[in-house]
Amino acid sequence: MKQEFLERAINLAIENVASHKGGPFGAVIVKDGKIIAEGVNRVTDDCDPTAHAEIRAIRAAARALNDFHLEGCEIYSSCEPCPMCFSAIYWAHLDCVYYASDAKDAARAGFDDAFIYEELKKDPEKRRIPFRKVELGGAKRPFEDWLADPERNEY
Amino acid sequence: MKQEFLERAINLAIENVASHKGGPFGAVIVKDGKIIAEGVNRVTDDCDPTAHAEIRAIRAAARALNDFHLEGCEIYSSCEPCPMCFSAIYWAHLDCVYYASDAKDAARAGFDDAFIYEELKKDPEKRRIPFRKVELGGAKRPFEDWLADPERNEY
Repeated sequence: MKQEFLERAINLAIENVASHKGGPFGAVIVKDGKIIAEGVNRVTDDCDPTAHAEIRAIRAAARALNDFHLEGCEIYSSCEPCPMCFSAIYWAHLDCVYYASDAKDAARAGFDDAFIYEELKKDPEKRRIPFRKVELGGAKRPFEDWLADPERNEY
Repeated sequence: MKQEFLERAINLAIENVASHKGGPFGAVIVKDGKIIAEGVNRVTDDCDPTAHAEIRAIRAAARALNDFHLEGCEIYSSCEPCPMCFSAIYWAHLDCVYYASDAKDAARAGFDDAFIYEELKKDPEKRRIPFRKVELGGAKRPFEDWLADPERNEY
């Protein structure tokens, strides 16, 4: 852990608030002791509900390394990742996460993701947003085709 | 629920496998009985670990409507959403989720996201990827600035 990287993530968040382009969140991704990608929240300016700082930093890092797996990289975030970014961190195979503010600090500022953590634990029919499985012939065909394809690009 | 939309999501997934541009997943977003956005998995071709079908459909729908909240919209996915897409669906304020294959079908094809659901429930220090909170002066400054800014664009 290098404090300067976390300070950079916090400064990105501060600058982002001043810019009026998104929420108070910043993140940097570090490899071999150097920042290889940065991200700030751009939900409002990009009109993209997925444009969280960590998601955007991961996308930028993957582009920079031309690799969709980020082994050997660490992410420093101004705030504890929400469940979306949490999961993206796993899909990206990052080594470690350092964060400064936590989910309670975020909630006090109006960014409450605790409810999504609660929703994830619920049975599908008890969720605020209904998740409904529909039985349909041919539903498994994409997976069958995938497994039958010797040229598939696994990830 | 209209079966034709789920069939479209499945067909997008099938076409995506044939294209060799990404994994066996497709999704469509419907508003007022019409498809307003579609998405397929492009993790490998876009070199983006977040480029899941649902995430890409949500981003496309938000662009199409010029709104980062998708109230009044439903998402039809060829497969049960992973925790990243699950959370994105909440951030996007979608009304409902319909899916065809489920997480078990996906796991059999090599796409196992059950472990992320397990990781989400664990104490931070027991996770495969360590999540470490670092105490730092000024950590809450982005939130303080945000709350003090009368011109902030809430989302």
